[in-house]
Amino acid sequence: MKKKNKKVNAAILIIGDEILSGRTQDKNTAFISNWLNSQCGISVSEVRIIPDQEKEIIKNILETSKKFNYVFTTGGIGPTHDDITAQSISKAFKVKYEYHKEAFKILEKYYGKERFNDGRKKMAKMPSGSKLIYNPSSAAPGFITKNVLSLPGVPSILNSMIENCKKFLIKGSKVHSKTLNLFTVESNIANKLGLIQKKYVNFVSIGSYPFFRLGKIGVSIVIRSISKNKLSKASSDLNKLAKEKKIKILKI
Amino acid sequence: MKKKNKKVNAAILIIGDEILSGRTQDKNTAFISNWLNSQCGISVSEVRIIPDQEKEIIKNILETSKKFNYVFTTGGIGPTHDDITAQSISKAFKVKYEYHKEAFKILEKYYGKERFNDGRKKMAKMPSGSKLIYNPSSAAPGFITKNVLSLPGVPSILNSMIENCKKFLIKGSKVHSKTLNLFTVESNIANKLGLIQKKYVNFVSIGSYPFFRLGKIGVSIVIRSISKNKLSKASSDLNKLAKEKKIKILKI
Repeated sequence: MKKKNKKVNAAILIIGDEILSGRTQDKNTAFISNWLNSQCGISVSEVRIIPDQEKEIIKNILETSKKFNYVFTTGGIGPTHDDITAQSISKAFKVKYEYHKEAFKILEKYYGKERFNDGRKKMAKMPSGSKLIYNPSSAAPGFITKNVLSLPGVPSILNSMIENCKKFLIKGSKVHSKTLNLFTVESNIANKLGLIQKKYVNFVSIGSYPFFRLGKIGVSIVIRSISKNKLSKASSDLNKLAKEKKIKILKI
Repeated sequence: MKKKNKKVNAAILIIGDEILSGRTQDKNTAFISNWLNSQCGISVSEVRIIPDQEKEIIKNILETSKKFNYVFTTGGIGPTHDDITAQSISKAFKVKYEYHKEAFKILEKYYGKERFNDGRKKMAKMPSGSKLIYNPSSAAPGFITKNVLSLPGVPSILNSMIENCKKFLIKGSKVHSKTLNLFTVESNIANKLGLIQKKYVNFVSIGSYPFFRLGKIGVSIVIRSISKNKLSKASSDLNKLAKEKKIKILKI
């Protein structure tokens, strides 16, 4: 990984009709986002789930690649007719869609010359100038074009490739987080919580999420900051609030 | 529900830092999308997961409400400082953010006058002119503003409210689907599958998704169409393809 920067962000484009239709539950967002934050100090700032349509892919690639430091795409890089991510990215960036020599060799070796049919060859076609993201589980590589990293949609394969993205990324500051689980309802603490958020407005983000556990209602207060010091101060303010209001804290 | 139309589409805006950070797995997309298609004949064409930031919410509300027949938002309508969906929608549409009389009454009755504090009152504030989406599980209603339907983020509460959205929606044509699970790999059928897709290009969409089951690799071919007749023709072409290639079909 390259030099350290302060704030580095990314968007994820989940490309696939099967996610939009509700047939398949997306699992890649949570995985990529957790990995980016914990391993690279990169925050995911937006996710879009879009259909397997060239026009939509082009439009979203252009919008997000301008707005964010990195864009991760998942899905649409397999051998079938509905896999159109690579050619769409080529069109978006106005570069040729052509065989990547090394990818071609990797796949030819993996399948053997006789079984290396047109569908399989298609997986070696990429936007011109792309660099490969190696795939230890099923050979067909992902690729990076400008600031867009393209990965497959199958979670187990994507997960096996994610470490190979690291060398292309500039590292940002890790966001630290703490969670305080309170046995209360949101509206009991909303006011005070708002005041604590105001106090740390540019340093700590405070989120409040209801939960149901062991038959009881509670609120998870999640605080996030790149400063460990500010995080610990906000955390102690929250503990004080719980004490004042006589709220039981769930320790886990 | 109102009169029948041909194609009706929707976008979903998942509003919440906790989904973007990977802390919480989104479950609302699959639920809403399945419900919209099966109960209302409405297809979800895009999903965006965005942070709890006013500027981002306004921008995305304006973009998606212009582009799609309906927009569903989830999250950000609770009592705490990070719940800013209602005021952001007000700003997007340049209408007042004010107490909704009926919502105020519902909440006042639910909590009792004494326990109806500022946090709880906040849940009765909405964009002026909104209509209520009743909430049978925890009282605080959702609302519809122009073509934007706002629901809470907690899946169990959202699920309990979804039927109350129906009366605001124009019904579209249901998309029928069939799945054929083949014990083969994508690249073995990619070519022929592409030809079948070409044959039905404007009538049937054909998706291809690898699976791993019972220790074997396979491909789920999902075909979708608003025409049952076209769907059955494409399905018989696919069965023919499996027979020609001597591919075993997984019956479930």
